[in-house]
Amino acid sequence: MGGTTSFDLKTYLDARRERVDAALDRYLPPEDSRPETLHRAMRYSVFSGGKRIRPVFCMAAYEACGGAGDAVLPVACSLELIHTYSLIHDDLPCMDDDDMRRGKPTSHKVFGEATAVLAGDALLTFAMELVVEAGGRLMDPLTALRIAAEITKAAGSDGMVAGQVLDMECENRQVDESLMEYIHSRKTGKLITASVRCGAIAAGADDVLLEKLSAYGSRLGLAFQIIDDILDEEGSFGELKSGKGLDGERGKATYPRVFGLERSKAAAAGLVADAARAVDGLGEGFAPLAALAEFVASRNS
Amino acid sequence: MGGTTSFDLKTYLDARRERVDAALDRYLPPEDSRPETLHRAMRYSVFSGGKRIRPVFCMAAYEACGGAGDAVLPVACSLELIHTYSLIHDDLPCMDDDDMRRGKPTSHKVFGEATAVLAGDALLTFAMELVVEAGGRLMDPLTALRIAAEITKAAGSDGMVAGQVLDMECENRQVDESLMEYIHSRKTGKLITASVRCGAIAAGADDVLLEKLSAYGSRLGLAFQIIDDILDEEGSFGELKSGKGLDGERGKATYPRVFGLERSKAAAAGLVADAARAVDGLGEGFAPLAALAEFVASRNS
Repeated sequence: MGGTTSFDLKTYLDARRERVDAALDRYLPPEDSRPETLHRAMRYSVFSGGKRIRPVFCMAAYEACGGAGDAVLPVACSLELIHTYSLIHDDLPCMDDDDMRRGKPTSHKVFGEATAVLAGDALLTFAMELVVEAGGRLMDPLTALRIAAEITKAAGSDGMVAGQVLDMECENRQVDESLMEYIHSRKTGKLITASVRCGAIAAGADDVLLEKLSAYGSRLGLAFQIIDDILDEEGSFGELKSGKGLDGERGKATYPRVFGLERSKAAAAGLVADAARAVDGLGEGFAPLAALAEFVASRNS
Repeated sequence: MGGTTSFDLKTYLDARRERVDAALDRYLPPEDSRPETLHRAMRYSVFSGGKRIRPVFCMAAYEACGGAGDAVLPVACSLELIHTYSLIHDDLPCMDDDDMRRGKPTSHKVFGEATAVLAGDALLTFAMELVVEAGGRLMDPLTALRIAAEITKAAGSDGMVAGQVLDMECENRQVDESLMEYIHSRKTGKLITASVRCGAIAAGADDVLLEKLSAYGSRLGLAFQIIDDILDEEGSFGELKSGKGLDGERGKATYPRVFGLERSKAAAAGLVADAARAVDGLGEGFAPLAALAEFVASRNS
């Protein structure tokens, strides 16, 4: 990865993940504050080995567009908290019924279903609090509001939650390519696109630049989901995930299930190339975004 | 009710409930838009006979503080959506396991557990979208941000969700008065207080006035919950609620369970009197808030 440039992606990623982890630890309510169980459950899932991809996309777009300093941190963390809440709820027995995630027992296995539901609710609520409060302190109010609107739209009933609902409804059903793209662009794509867009908005990017970054984010977000499903299918990643079986085995409408591995790999590669092209020629500051596209394409976990 | 003034509370409530219902219908995604099931589930619970108490408190405070027009409507609706999401999640089998609410089958009985979880998630997300987007369009950005922060704090892990968690944890356990007040002020009190405060903030109330309205809201919010539990206990309300048994029978730490009916009624009456006193002498515009306090005290359903 990063072979075509001298840019060192690993150092870049590590530095940003460290900043995000430290900020999340600072922001989240301490475990010894009441209600302790809830706060423990919130932190358990947030610090369970997430790759912080959404915060990194957000920070990379922020920096590429000329942003500096910590103003973007509450936004970056908010995106990770929304991702985390969605995983907790997706893992519930009434949803995907997953006992394990990232090699650790899922929230409801550790804390019980009721606390898992409420920990998800609290994380979603806290994600919004971070943007409107800490974000509102560090950015001008109009920018903070605009970012909060982007995030709520990406996470809501025409965004991530829509993807989740359709994903369930289409289990063991025939789906065409357009429905598939609808589902996957929402399940993962919209929040990743919002991550890139929010970073750019925080830095004051103009509409032309924002358009390019939206294209980058939406292509890469969809590629990310397809590659996830390819890795699931090939088993290299899946065996770590769950004892209950993979999305494919569960009858979910994944790209590799519906179109086969080869066509899925080609689709992902095409999307990644589109994403890289969208930020091509925008200058040195956009090199990390280009490298992140390559990283998404080449990841094997 | 309203016997001491010529103020007609019924007409007042009806007018505001109608405006809220119409606005909710306008704001919420249509049932025939994708994903249809999710949007149907969201609307099913929102239009299931709620009394719109939180929006009414919000609008009453707004008008009392000199606010006029529709700027407060997205905020008022947002509070109702947060209340609705909390009911959907509370009713889940892993939480209170209620089959019926307000005489109708609960969300998970109609749509299944997974969709009920997601409908709750989507309503919470949409509640925040309403404030930051529609609210941000109708109010100045700083005010919209401040209101969004109030709501997220009241709904979050030191607010409504905290009340929910402790409420569960204290089932069949001995609790003292201070813990009881902690639970109930969060379970219901904080969101009702936020309703009053957000209306006042939207109207540009100063800190002195906001302080008085906070006292009004917190006393009344706690009274509201105690009276709910008294009505449950006396059965006049409870039999409509559920086939699975009332909070008291479930071993929940309610005021009447812990302190007996008489002491609970005295506590509620004291809190209502405190609330009325907090808005006493502030002028004609505050008459509706005084009447609402009386309404909370005298309601029997």
